[in-house]
Amino acid sequence: MKLHIIKIGGNVINTATALDSFLDRFAQLEGPKILVHGGGKLLEELARKLDIPQQMVNGRRITDGETLKLAAMVYAGLINKQIVAALQAKGVNALGLSGADANCIPAVKRVVGAQDFGFVGDVSPATVNADFLASLLVANICPVFCAITHDGQGQLLNTNADTQASALAIALAKHYHVELVYCFEKNGVLSNPEDEQSVIPQITPSSYAMLKDEQRITEGMIPKLDNAFAAIQQGVASVRITHANALIQHDPAGVPLGTHLVA
Amino acid sequence: MKLHIIKIGGNVINTATALDSFLDRFAQLEGPKILVHGGGKLLEELARKLDIPQQMVNGRRITDGETLKLAAMVYAGLINKQIVAALQAKGVNALGLSGADANCIPAVKRVVGAQDFGFVGDVSPATVNADFLASLLVANICPVFCAITHDGQGQLLNTNADTQASALAIALAKHYHVELVYCFEKNGVLSNPEDEQSVIPQITPSSYAMLKDEQRITEGMIPKLDNAFAAIQQGVASVRITHANALIQHDPAGVPLGTHLVA
Repeated sequence: MKLHIIKIGGNVINTATALDSFLDRFAQLEGPKILVHGGGKLLEELARKLDIPQQMVNGRRITDGETLKLAAMVYAGLINKQIVAALQAKGVNALGLSGADANCIPAVKRVVGAQDFGFVGDVSPATVNADFLASLLVANICPVFCAITHDGQGQLLNTNADTQASALAIALAKHYHVELVYCFEKNGVLSNPEDEQSVIPQITPSSYAMLKDEQRITEGMIPKLDNAFAAIQQGVASVRITHANALIQHDPAGVPLGTHLVA
Repeated sequence: MKLHIIKIGGNVINTATALDSFLDRFAQLEGPKILVHGGGKLLEELARKLDIPQQMVNGRRITDGETLKLAAMVYAGLINKQIVAALQAKGVNALGLSGADANCIPAVKRVVGAQDFGFVGDVSPATVNADFLASLLVANICPVFCAITHDGQGQLLNTNADTQASALAIALAKHYHVELVYCFEKNGVLSNPEDEQSVIPQITPSSYAMLKDEQRITEGMIPKLDNAFAAIQQGVASVRITHANALIQHDPAGVPLGTHLVA
């Protein structure tokens, strides 16, 4: 049976109208589906207003104790429940989840190497509670995940939403024909970041290596693509990176818009 | 089958050690159980830091748009997920819920009479999604409710946690032998608010009327007692008001500590 797992990025969440249009499209997807949402800029705004300094290292946030509280408030609280309420109004029986809820996605606090990332959790497909999620899907419930997880010992952890979507997709690929779609504010993986029309229709492991060598894939895209490749190489039926507006759009030949990954 | 529904009040949530001790006791309750938690003072603290004015009328909060966002962040986000993660660590398979999630508890925005309370939701036992909750309980999952609900049209609403606990208890009394316990920072309903030893062991509708006439029950207790009586009069097997420390304690005769309501 087909299962859609859709990741929606933070930039779409920042604009109420963009989010609402996206949720309209998401609501139109037939059959079982799971939404994973990112954070948006609200955490930064709140941190600024509350004078909680934010430390970034190589584009990654350091999640100290105060920032973790903000993440739990913004991601698991406000954004998650607003999306759930909006989907309920659109006829989708949404259920908001963190990885702690029903122990859906236990995580491991990132081992501190050269850099301490703080309360950051790494997730693995092997520990995803796929049976519980399958029981929700059978009951026609649509899980809506924020990227907060826990370590099973009472500690909440901040997790990368792209990685979480990939782990969920791989774990559920044992039960379902999973279609994983990463939606964000661009039309796909672009060969020229300045040109929205330069979408690369298909990326293979060898073309990915080449694009990285040629530095045509920018730094921010590499973790997303690594997550996407992990999924397509571990049993997920299809993986696509596309614009939030293009979730259900096809080209004239019937191919869904965006960049498709090939194992 | 017996079902415990426990409401834990805001004042216990304010102190990490008090909350942790309470959760230890809650974890010891055998069989199916549901936790409903209040808000604590974190919302007020956050509102003060963010310069969001809080308006109270007769001890009730006016929930304007900005305050509703704070409520969603603090209640559905931080407090709910911290409790869920703590219970998971104590061996309870907790699942955090708002009334919007899986449409568990649809609410109705309070009709504006003399006073506009803003985004406040009123709940009714008739609309509680008891079948869904029963399916979680059968799967050995412990629902943990914050007092955020929704109107089914995309609007989140702030709800009284005491009323929500009462509505849940009444709705589930059709399926279970429900024991409802309101836990807070006092030993029970006190005949003298200054004397923690003056617990009234039992209150009947007629003694309640008398206590109110004599003004021995203070204003803050009246809504809680009204919710408690609604439960005991609509099929809930037992209703008790007690100290968070006394959740599982009995007197020498084996009677659970606190104030018991009689229909």
